[in-house]
Amino acid sequence: MKLYNFPFSGNCYKVRLLLNQLEIPFEKIDVKLFQQETQLPEFLAKNPSGKVPVLEIDSETFLSESSAILTYLARDTKFFPSDRLPQTEILKWLFFEQFSLAANLGRPRVWMKVMNQTEQMAPMIAYHQKLGNAALQVVEDHLTQHSFFVNENYTIADIAIYGYVHVADEAGYDMSQFPAIGAWCDRVRSQPNHITISEDKKPVS
Amino acid sequence: MKLYNFPFSGNCYKVRLLLNQLEIPFEKIDVKLFQQETQLPEFLAKNPSGKVPVLEIDSETFLSESSAILTYLARDTKFFPSDRLPQTEILKWLFFEQFSLAANLGRPRVWMKVMNQTEQMAPMIAYHQKLGNAALQVVEDHLTQHSFFVNENYTIADIAIYGYVHVADEAGYDMSQFPAIGAWCDRVRSQPNHITISEDKKPVS
Repeated sequence: MKLYNFPFSGNCYKVRLLLNQLEIPFEKIDVKLFQQETQLPEFLAKNPSGKVPVLEIDSETFLSESSAILTYLARDTKFFPSDRLPQTEILKWLFFEQFSLAANLGRPRVWMKVMNQTEQMAPMIAYHQKLGNAALQVVEDHLTQHSFFVNENYTIADIAIYGYVHVADEAGYDMSQFPAIGAWCDRVRSQPNHITISEDKKPVS
Repeated sequence: MKLYNFPFSGNCYKVRLLLNQLEIPFEKIDVKLFQQETQLPEFLAKNPSGKVPVLEIDSETFLSESSAILTYLARDTKFFPSDRLPQTEILKWLFFEQFSLAANLGRPRVWMKVMNQTEQMAPMIAYHQKLGNAALQVVEDHLTQHSFFVNENYTIADIAIYGYVHVADEAGYDMSQFPAIGAWCDRVRSQPNHITISEDKKPVS
């Protein structure tokens, strides 16, 4: 497998983390996102929406949307049980993450940490942070009652939500408001074969 | 089953449409979203994120996130085939819809059509429309080549994307730019047991 990857992206990190925890070897291909490499025809042929991550599973099959990739890789493993209700609960959190967390945490993080646009984008940052804080409170309340998101087991719901939540401080969020999230982040980091967002296992081709 | 529903919501419509096409009887319970009824303790006990739709499948089990509900209902039907690759492709479009379409079409639609805030929210509307138009172009390009989103069959990917896309004009989008989307909307409307966003089958309790 080949993973088209951007190191800073929380969405790419989710896939790298799961690949490592499943001990699936992969070749990592870093793309120059901010130099518009994902808008070139050869990349758009792999993913017409021009986004990373993309997972090439064979020379003709390219998977995109990080959360869909997680379900593909984790199918029939403990990270994504096949029973109907737990699977629906995991998908619920995956959709919650993409709708209510990813943009609200990810975009301010890019503007603040990469683009140096904290002042220029202040109204947009405030708009996303208001929505993001409400979503983080839902997560906090859940994790006050539960060790992990679904059935007290570490699954792709945890991986998906960890991707941006563990770097929310880089998007200007005051995470001291969310102690249960902090404790859960520690539990996620203690899972076997965990890697940080800046770590790579050696890519194997 | 009971569906906690808000008639104007594209996300609620997706679930009503699939329930009708699966010929599953349900009791529809309209909630007063704009009067904050979804923020009351009795609703938050059903869905802590305070959003509709919520599907009550028994007195203790409440499903939320419209896309997750679609996967639950369509499991083992032609609307959500169980093979690994088509299922991943359908999920890809479901996540694409929630990340790249739902907020960008849904929020301007509320501000413009419900709240009468077209002028006041003009910068936010423009921000979402820029992102939304890029996502609609991805959809348009796909539908130029395909009758439906995955494997040329009508699935929950079509239902999910139709929910907000078919009312994108109400969010200020010029849909004459997207003729393949218009033709696909006609194909969606011609499916058996289709209902419009303002139609209800008689709820059966």
